[in-house]
Amino acid sequence: MGDILRIGRLELRVLDLEKSVDYYTNVIGLEVTGREGDRVYLKAWDEYDHHSIILQKSDQAGMDHMGFKVKDIYALEKLEKKIEQFGCTLTRSSENTRLAEGEAIRFKIPTGHYMELYTDIKQVGTRVGVINPHPWPDGLKGIAPHRLDHCLLTGDDLETATRFYKEVLGFHQTERITTVDGEVTIGSFLSCTNKAHDLAFVKGPDAKFHHAGFYVDNWYEVLKAADILTKHDVQVEVTPTRHGITRGQTTYFYDPSGNRNEAFASGYISYADFPTITWTEDKIATGIFYHRREMVETFSTSLT
Amino acid sequence: MGDILRIGRLELRVLDLEKSVDYYTNVIGLEVTGREGDRVYLKAWDEYDHHSIILQKSDQAGMDHMGFKVKDIYALEKLEKKIEQFGCTLTRSSENTRLAEGEAIRFKIPTGHYMELYTDIKQVGTRVGVINPHPWPDGLKGIAPHRLDHCLLTGDDLETATRFYKEVLGFHQTERITTVDGEVTIGSFLSCTNKAHDLAFVKGPDAKFHHAGFYVDNWYEVLKAADILTKHDVQVEVTPTRHGITRGQTTYFYDPSGNRNEAFASGYISYADFPTITWTEDKIATGIFYHRREMVETFSTSLT
Amino acid sequence: MGDILRIGRLELRVLDLEKSVDYYTNVIGLEVTGREGDRVYLKAWDEYDHHSIILQKSDQAGMDHMGFKVKDIYALEKLEKKIEQFGCTLTRSSENTRLAEGEAIRFKIPTGHYMELYTDIKQVGTRVGVINPHPWPDGLKGIAPHRLDHCLLTGDDLETATRFYKEVLGFHQTERITTVDGEVTIGSFLSCTNKAHDLAFVKGPDAKFHHAGFYVDNWYEVLKAADILTKHDVQVEVTPTRHGITRGQTTYFYDPSGNRNEAFASGYISYADFPTITWTEDKIATGIFYHRREMVETFSTSLT
Amino acid sequence: MGDILRIGRLELRVLDLEKSVDYYTNVIGLEVTGREGDRVYLKAWDEYDHHSIILQKSDQAGMDHMGFKVKDIYALEKLEKKIEQFGCTLTRSSENTRLAEGEAIRFKIPTGHYMELYTDIKQVGTRVGVINPHPWPDGLKGIAPHRLDHCLLTGDDLETATRFYKEVLGFHQTERITTVDGEVTIGSFLSCTNKAHDLAFVKGPDAKFHHAGFYVDNWYEVLKAADILTKHDVQVEVTPTRHGITRGQTTYFYDPSGNRNEAFASGYISYADFPTITWTEDKIATGIFYHRREMVETFSTSLT
Repeated sequence: MGDILRIGRLELRVLDLEKSVDYYTNVIGLEVTGREGDRVYLKAWDEYDHHSIILQKSDQAGMDHMGFKVKDIYALEKLEKKIEQFGCTLTRSSENTRLAEGEAIRFKIPTGHYMELYTDIKQVGTRVGVINPHPWPDGLKGIAPHRLDHCLLTGDDLETATRFYKEVLGFHQTERITTVDGEVTIGSFLSCTNKAHDLAFVKGPDAKFHHAGFYVDNWYEVLKAADILTKHDVQVEVTPTRHGITRGQTTYFYDPSGNRNEAFASGYISYADFPTITWTEDKIATGIFYHRREMVETFSTSLT
Repeated sequence: MGDILRIGRLELRVLDLEKSVDYYTNVIGLEVTGREGDRVYLKAWDEYDHHSIILQKSDQAGMDHMGFKVKDIYALEKLEKKIEQFGCTLTRSSENTRLAEGEAIRFKIPTGHYMELYTDIKQVGTRVGVINPHPWPDGLKGIAPHRLDHCLLTGDDLETATRFYKEVLGFHQTERITTVDGEVTIGSFLSCTNKAHDLAFVKGPDAKFHHAGFYVDNWYEVLKAADILTKHDVQVEVTPTRHGITRGQTTYFYDPSGNRNEAFASGYISYADFPTITWTEDKIATGIFYHRREMVETFSTSLT
Repeated sequence: MGDILRIGRLELRVLDLEKSVDYYTNVIGLEVTGREGDRVYLKAWDEYDHHSIILQKSDQAGMDHMGFKVKDIYALEKLEKKIEQFGCTLTRSSENTRLAEGEAIRFKIPTGHYMELYTDIKQVGTRVGVINPHPWPDGLKGIAPHRLDHCLLTGDDLETATRFYKEVLGFHQTERITTVDGEVTIGSFLSCTNKAHDLAFVKGPDAKFHHAGFYVDNWYEVLKAADILTKHDVQVEVTPTRHGITRGQTTYFYDPSGNRNEAFASGYISYADFPTITWTEDKIATGIFYHRREMVETFSTSLT
Repeated sequence: MGDILRIGRLELRVLDLEKSVDYYTNVIGLEVTGREGDRVYLKAWDEYDHHSIILQKSDQAGMDHMGFKVKDIYALEKLEKKIEQFGCTLTRSSENTRLAEGEAIRFKIPTGHYMELYTDIKQVGTRVGVINPHPWPDGLKGIAPHRLDHCLLTGDDLETATRFYKEVLGFHQTERITTVDGEVTIGSFLSCTNKAHDLAFVKGPDAKFHHAGFYVDNWYEVLKAADILTKHDVQVEVTPTRHGITRGQTTYFYDPSGNRNEAFASGYISYADFPTITWTEDKIATGIFYHRREMVETFSTSLT
């Protein structure tokens, strides 16, 4: 395992906190683990840490920051130095900034988004426990993903962003989209684990949020997710299909503030020595929507 | 990502080479990538390296060695030193020992099995390629697993084996089985990735092989695997079910030499900071065969 | 459509009524639609009629009777005559014998079981309704089958039983098991619909009950069923597998009184002009348990 | 079982016979069972009769006729009289009109389409056979549906069409779409079996063909179907989703002549005594595309 364990949390800005909590608990099926001021903390049933989603009341939707959990304080210090050497301005969030969190470092990545790295967060465990556990708990609600899986952001200079994640943070690039001549990167899929992606970028305006992906177990769970969205009258942007990129199975939809969510299943197991798969721009629609092979207009324009 | 990338290869001893090749190509659905002397080299369709299974003609079934791929030569040297410090005797296999392989280090682990670490192996790629690839190739045969997933071995001193893998090789222990009083480890599940296990041990005679697990995508693929086994009249030891341990979906069967194979799907994503799940001996049958909740006699006695 | 619409109800004798209601509602996931005296009436979520299962408190487990719904009173009268001509003694249950039921005819079939035919039963509908319905209702519990699917009984003279169902009641025989010489029928699978079976017989003692099958949608639902059985500590006799006969996917287990239940998925669509599939006795185990290909001892001996 | 067994065959007009044969064998995965003149005959692997699809070379795409198989000659004669009494002009196709077929009656239904009823067709069986059969044959290609499932046609007067199928041919109406005031039928789903539909109509021009549905076993097979379509570069009109109507899982696409095809899975089991489900026009999009809840423009305009 590397220094960075996983995407550990997303802080999302939402317009109506109560409507958002209702959506993230009853439709997505997360559980609330804490509330304080304008923030509500939630986790998926299969996550051990106190929260993976923080909803922050705001007058503008979008992502406040994404947080990646680091394996220990030594790794965090090592990464801190490398990030500063790369030229990012770092701040340190103090221990009581947010509920159940210890200290974190916060910095702006080349695409203008805020990222945090941390190792200290309260572990609250799961309802199946760690002694002779059943494979899933009773009383699941909604889509009931296992966990936060990845997020996708937009930005202008994806070459620099990719270099930052590979060289500074030790990610491997599993896939990329380039112009047909190979000159410009217009999509970059990055993993700090054996998953097909933990973080991805597509070419677009800096500092914008495209979607948060939640992991569900299989293609039937994607169907169940889409059924639940219709039952709750939630807008579905992309109905169940397969991605060419990552091979994952997917459906896309919006939270009440317009932040895009995804229920994502499958996707291959990646290793750092695997070659980076390249999609050329002429095949980008097949890469994204493998069956449709045509772009969905809102998919590139609807950002928060 | 850590220093050790994955379980990269198993060399299995088989009694009848041609029958074994027929089985591993037509029933399991691997492809032959090389032959030399008494050895045949095979890979699964979704693997990039030249081989993951080596069949070695022998008069006794079992595992010659398991090989784990290391990320680079520096990591390999670092690991070599730690292994020697632990007290293992190391040998170096030279470059032309086996087809398509570079140098490897070979040593006996505390349970008496041979393990190799290597970084140099010819990469032959997959039939879907790395430019705008389709999610799966045409012409798949048999069970058609994505890759070699893990192996399970038996041994006497699982505390030492676990300590070796955690402290020397940097694995994390995802699950363990202990006597009810917690004194003795009778099962240990170890991961060097985000998979639920890459290598596992159960209490039993030293130096014995329990099974090789091949990864299939989902529960329907486990059904297809079991159907194919019946169509080919291959002995199925455990029909499709779920493991409590790893939550994976599974079916077990035997190759023509009596080496046990598994088609394994799903299983959770593990992280190094997750607590180790503990199964107590009184629940061992539920841990292994979640639905049956009783042991299958041959499962502990049939070893190669 | 023929005169007989479907298997409409089973009245099962249970030893402990409250424990049985708990099991059939929380594990199987039926809903109670009525109670009167020693009987509790239940239906599956996707059934329109008032009940498909009646639990009758008794000191001996087993099946009181199976009821098949007939399309109308004219068809019922026509069938009544044919049954009497065949030599069965008929009685008429009056309208108030059981809750929500009109008149029925009751007779003993050649294997000694009681069967009823009826057309009049209160229709209570489903929770999804019939105006712009969602595909499934909220709040499902347990295995949550769509409906009662079929039952299997034992008897001695299966040739006569088969003849009765084909000639008198208009069923078609989809599959049969015979001795290798073809002389004796030891299994007979009968359908009055396009399902692979609605009623089946295997050779054994007369008047005994083998199992009630409940329909679930797919192989993942069979997995979920088996998971739920383990979570509720219900004895599973046969873990998830496929039948050769009907091709259905299945798991078998017992209600608290020892009446065997099945969660059954898939199975082909049958038509009256299809040839009857024949399984020879030497392949009977493959026909019943396609992956295991060996009999499960209790499967033939444990009857109620 | 009723007098009409099932939708037995569709004769489709295609523009380029060889391209069409290539598509129906390699993409859909039917097998050619005969050729004569401008016609090619095909069947799905799980069908017993000689053919279910006839491709007829023509300069205009569309449906020549649909044929329903009747259980015997007596039923055919009875139906013939009722059809004539309804006012349809009948012709009799002689025995050698098409390959492997006996005599059929042919008539124009109220929507202007040609329908045939027949009972005599050569039975060629399946590759798994009827003695101890495996659940599926080796060597399947393409989408490999089990069988022709249903077809959908357009017409103006759906009240009369529905009445014809219910009163004359004995179908039951499982679902309907009406204007919000309930005055006009704009969709009618009809079954002569226990399937959710065998034939359906939507309001539109008379005598036009909307699609032929092929049955696949489950939601993963729908995914596989859509994958195969992309691999063969076949235009997919509707990517995998669920219907509200029938609850079936589906993907729509076009054959090389522009005739729409569907891979259809699941769908409930219907019975003649079930109430007809009603969709109101304001919910029509949810009824057709349960997840999207918006119409796909080509879906109503692209007819052959």
